[in-house]
Amino acid sequence: MASSTGDRSQAVRHGLRAKVLTLDGMNPRVRRVEYAVRGPIVQRALELEQELRQGVKKPFTEVIRANIGDAQAMGQRPITFLRQVLALCVNPDLLSSPNFPDDAKKRAERILQACGGHSLGAYSVSSGIQLIREDVARYIERRDGGIPADPNNVFLSTGASDAIVTVLKLLVAGEGHTRTGVLIPIPQYPLYSATLAELGAVQVDYYLDEERAWALDVAELHRALGQARDHCRPRALCVINPGNPTGQVQTRECIEAVIRFAFEERLFLLADEDNVYAAGSQFHSFKKVLMEMGPPYAGQQELASFHSTSKGYMGECGFRGGYVEVVNMDAAVQQQMLKLMSVRLCPPVPGQALLDLVVSPPAPTDPSFAQFQAEKQAVLAELAAKAKLTEQVFNEAPGISCNPVQGAMYSFPRVQLPPRAVERAQELGLAPDMFFCLRLLEETGICVVPGSGFGQREGTYHFRMTILPPLEKLRLLLEKLSRFHAKFTLEYS
Amino acid sequence: MASSTGDRSQAVRHGLRAKVLTLDGMNPRVRRVEYAVRGPIVQRALELEQELRQGVKKPFTEVIRANIGDAQAMGQRPITFLRQVLALCVNPDLLSSPNFPDDAKKRAERILQACGGHSLGAYSVSSGIQLIREDVARYIERRDGGIPADPNNVFLSTGASDAIVTVLKLLVAGEGHTRTGVLIPIPQYPLYSATLAELGAVQVDYYLDEERAWALDVAELHRALGQARDHCRPRALCVINPGNPTGQVQTRECIEAVIRFAFEERLFLLADEDNVYAAGSQFHSFKKVLMEMGPPYAGQQELASFHSTSKGYMGECGFRGGYVEVVNMDAAVQQQMLKLMSVRLCPPVPGQALLDLVVSPPAPTDPSFAQFQAEKQAVLAELAAKAKLTEQVFNEAPGISCNPVQGAMYSFPRVQLPPRAVERAQELGLAPDMFFCLRLLEETGICVVPGSGFGQREGTYHFRMTILPPLEKLRLLLEKLSRFHAKFTLEYS
Repeated sequence: MASSTGDRSQAVRHGLRAKVLTLDGMNPRVRRVEYAVRGPIVQRALELEQELRQGVKKPFTEVIRANIGDAQAMGQRPITFLRQVLALCVNPDLLSSPNFPDDAKKRAERILQACGGHSLGAYSVSSGIQLIREDVARYIERRDGGIPADPNNVFLSTGASDAIVTVLKLLVAGEGHTRTGVLIPIPQYPLYSATLAELGAVQVDYYLDEERAWALDVAELHRALGQARDHCRPRALCVINPGNPTGQVQTRECIEAVIRFAFEERLFLLADEDNVYAAGSQFHSFKKVLMEMGPPYAGQQELASFHSTSKGYMGECGFRGGYVEVVNMDAAVQQQMLKLMSVRLCPPVPGQALLDLVVSPPAPTDPSFAQFQAEKQAVLAELAAKAKLTEQVFNEAPGISCNPVQGAMYSFPRVQLPPRAVERAQELGLAPDMFFCLRLLEETGICVVPGSGFGQREGTYHFRMTILPPLEKLRLLLEKLSRFHAKFTLEYS
Repeated sequence: MASSTGDRSQAVRHGLRAKVLTLDGMNPRVRRVEYAVRGPIVQRALELEQELRQGVKKPFTEVIRANIGDAQAMGQRPITFLRQVLALCVNPDLLSSPNFPDDAKKRAERILQACGGHSLGAYSVSSGIQLIREDVARYIERRDGGIPADPNNVFLSTGASDAIVTVLKLLVAGEGHTRTGVLIPIPQYPLYSATLAELGAVQVDYYLDEERAWALDVAELHRALGQARDHCRPRALCVINPGNPTGQVQTRECIEAVIRFAFEERLFLLADEDNVYAAGSQFHSFKKVLMEMGPPYAGQQELASFHSTSKGYMGECGFRGGYVEVVNMDAAVQQQMLKLMSVRLCPPVPGQALLDLVVSPPAPTDPSFAQFQAEKQAVLAELAAKAKLTEQVFNEAPGISCNPVQGAMYSFPRVQLPPRAVERAQELGLAPDMFFCLRLLEETGICVVPGSGFGQREGTYHFRMTILPPLEKLRLLLEKLSRFHAKFTLEYS
């Protein structure tokens, strides 16, 4: 009691002061950052999980997090070969164990030879381990039918996000009407909007065409660019292929048109090209299309192409592996990029090792080949089945429509929301699809992200849902979600 | 020939254009970034290594990279227990192997239970795995003699650098005379200067006192702050303890004085407190001293304390593990920090797992305890011996002086450079100590970083050298370096 009074009087004597760092006084650009994929709805999902653990009664027994493309969290098992080699790298004492296949041991030894002190615990050079950059370059060459790739143009990164932010940082300059503008698709993955807000660049929206399966239309690029030139200096164009959150895969014709547009309008191209499983569509890399277009494009159009180990059949999100290949980048700028990367020392070395295995998987003559292929194909086949199921169930539900999910782990269905639900949301100060998603979460435990977090045409409503839960669970989830939508529609009609 | 001519004429027709992204047009803040630890001297070291491999004759047979605190690259072996548990986490099939101690298995199972899908391959929440945040909080409590730590104030990060950049980002605001100023020590670790340049904040230098073993003097803080207030708005004070590059450990009295200064001058405190081996000095955390000072300091002074798994006895740089504990941070600002972290999804999960083991090592009753302790003590004892040897050899060399290396992996010796060497450097457009370090590298293969990369008093010259090479190699290196300095001095006298 005495001490508490003492504390209080002392606080009064010294004055209980405002914080040095307050919401009002902090970096205004950081305040403007929004990131829906891990926003309030995910916070609420975490709370609900905690309440379930504490025995609070809910109308569901588990929270299903379909908000983020996190395959292993959804029960996908890691690919055996990848984890065997990594375990050998982490603990080289295991190299003498008879329980690992020979090719896994050879691969681990090869990676360790390329590490400082032959250990994953040493820093690498900032651009990533040289051997792995070379392996990535050879992988790109195979992917692109032999078009050369230079390891010196490959930079390893902490997931793809890290490299995307680095390249955007290089591009930002100017003030007022000369501020850098960057064209991004709407809907987009909110890393782009968040980074542009933080860097103080101008976000220039171009809309994907939902009526034509989220196609990228060059006329729309022209419209967006023309309007943007009134108030900023557009310098870059971002393309996400396959689309995130929209899941479509771009045609070769579309990619050619985009490259021609970027060249004519003098825009640096950023292509976010996460690996695909390609259900009923073929994946074309921007690099390959660019090189095949020949002069003047091939030798001049500046391009950065981003990849991560989080997507694709391996789904190794936690390791934060990734890389960027730059094409036709000014040599001095490339030196500046390397300098910027070096301030953070290096990407996580276990993630680099994992990337190496992804870009150079077992060869047909290797002991691990058969199992590796079987595991990989099983994942890809299941993803294709899930994509199809998602499209099918949603399109059968009244008031929900869903474009084909071609090559990503996401679907971005459109939902009709009754006018009274929209009004109710506005009363609550919520975006209408946020209101829908919050109610969905509270009543069913299904966690998806409202379309407003990715951007959408005014008056349309969507949500992003991953297709990653195991097939039978996904079916239940899709049906539950469709039923909830019907009930919600009825409630507000 | 025809095609080459065709290319050329087409290039002419379309005009061979300037790049969209050029050195002149790129982000001017990024251009201003400097990062000596991986700068031109390290590039040259890489080239020399390549030349040696190609059989080019050099006056040395290997490049010794004493430029960066990378223990395992210098031959330090990883701690067995850490790598056993990590291998089990990476490849849980090993949990049934008889070749791992029971406590390692239990620890791996405990970590995997806390991971999404029980896999290191799932994303964690953006602040890091909750169980690990709790373990870190308990570790901080033990470190600080029972002073409470709240897991909700602990955020895991990608090395310490990541969290330092994040907190600095929050603090940056204003334009012109109201721009945020941040006080940093000189010499400093160049992450600070690089980040402030990139963020457009004002770097406010306070000088450490080389004559008093790099002591931090509050009178000097007052001088720096007073001058800075003319042209910016100082909002934060960074302290590195133990010093980097300077290696000193701060006394408790000094920390108290710094806290009082920050409180009175309304500065947010950033304490970069990498683990120490404490040779002849005791480590005090800023948090503990702050809490023991009582009101008004304890309940009000804002503090962020940064740590990494790269330093200390484990030296696990490649895993990029780290954390920050925030104290008295405004709750709304803390939410904003979490939002900012969430844009990058999560720190690498293997690094999080490693951090968990570092903050909760084997207990005395655990099967792994004896070996763990023996390995840890051997590393610490060798570090202490290396610190002593470094100080001793350098102080015996004419023209070199070196303060005691108390608790870091670095020494920052001062070298006398003859006036003619300084003139020669100026002719070459080089900082004099850069000239010295480049010559040292070319003639001996020893790679150290010039003091000008960290900052130093005008007219003084230093270099940063890690003390990490194995003891006998370090002895040779120190003697070789001292002899080179004598020869260099003679040459330019």
